[in-house]
Amino acid sequence: MGALTDGPKQDRSRVTRRRLLESAVTCLAEHGWSGSTVTVVAEHAGVSRGAAQHHFPTREDLFTAAVEYVAEERSAILRDLPSPATTRAAVETVVGLYTGPLFRAALQLWVAASNEPQLGPRVTALEARIGRETHRMAVELLGADESVPGVRETVQGLLDMARGLGLANLLTDDSARRARVVAQWAALLDTALSRPVS
Amino acid sequence: MGALTDGPKQDRSRVTRRRLLESAVTCLAEHGWSGSTVTVVAEHAGVSRGAAQHHFPTREDLFTAAVEYVAEERSAILRDLPSPATTRAAVETVVGLYTGPLFRAALQLWVAASNEPQLGPRVTALEARIGRETHRMAVELLGADESVPGVRETVQGLLDMARGLGLANLLTDDSARRARVVAQWAALLDTALSRPVS
Repeated sequence: MGALTDGPKQDRSRVTRRRLLESAVTCLAEHGWSGSTVTVVAEHAGVSRGAAQHHFPTREDLFTAAVEYVAEERSAILRDLPSPATTRAAVETVVGLYTGPLFRAALQLWVAASNEPQLGPRVTALEARIGRETHRMAVELLGADESVPGVRETVQGLLDMARGLGLANLLTDDSARRARVVAQWAALLDTALSRPVS
Repeated sequence: MGALTDGPKQDRSRVTRRRLLESAVTCLAEHGWSGSTVTVVAEHAGVSRGAAQHHFPTREDLFTAAVEYVAEERSAILRDLPSPATTRAAVETVVGLYTGPLFRAALQLWVAASNEPQLGPRVTALEARIGRETHRMAVELLGADESVPGVRETVQGLLDMARGLGLANLLTDDSARRARVVAQWAALLDTALSRPVS
């Protein structure tokens, strides 16, 4: 093929790659790690198994890349949003990060990594990267000043709470209880962030 | 066998049952749901597969009973402890509930239940029972007065945070960061529980 066709070919390749990544997150969230093979994902994406393996040589490559890709997409969307007007709106946005399909997929991957040696180190590194980026986003959303003693730990605790709320939403729709917890903890945070406790 | 041997026989049966339950939690925490079969647990407990199936006809029976048994053991131990002197000590105890093998085992079961229809309803019911009991324990440990508006949600948020801290400890030893988050949030809770925010 000549130089003229390289452009569209690369575009097609990028589209295939993106479809595989998005399908991988969907499959992981719905079927768990043991139910998510490269074959299942390729079928869901409407791509041949060979094409899938061309993009991602191993199952581990595919799923860690998928969780990373979707996390980056999410960061890009959040970066472009206007700053929330209230602590409560900021807390709602932070907690919302842990109730969608990305969290479900990531949770499946974290839990699988705790038992699968070939997955462990890669997922640990990925979790650290996503964790740092989510912390940065939370600080920005809350307009928090981390130079004030305790504020960093306050934000970390909020992210831990958000992760726990995501877990509580795994088997049942926990949205009504979650809304009450978010309202109360947003009030606690409002006090904590404007007037540090020590 | 005569009446005289019924006692020791029942004792042996109880010992076998307990060994199976404890082994099931250990296996689930270490190998995950897909690696935890009745055969693996029976072997770990030093019990024949037939004896294991006599006690627990299905894999689902064994593992839900195991998580419930260990949760009840834990409640019994906590009930006998003296009340913590400070909010920080109480928060440390609550968070400690989510960093041991029981939480790891329960997490594996919750996550498996999100993808396995035959496990879903049983684990949902079990999670609700354990959740209510853990909430009751947290209220007692903190000496919290739930008739004060917001206090119930404050305690719930603490339990969500504790669950999130447990998840953060799954792949790496998160104890140093966790201690800082616990210290800061114990201080915030101290203020919130004595002087309600609204």
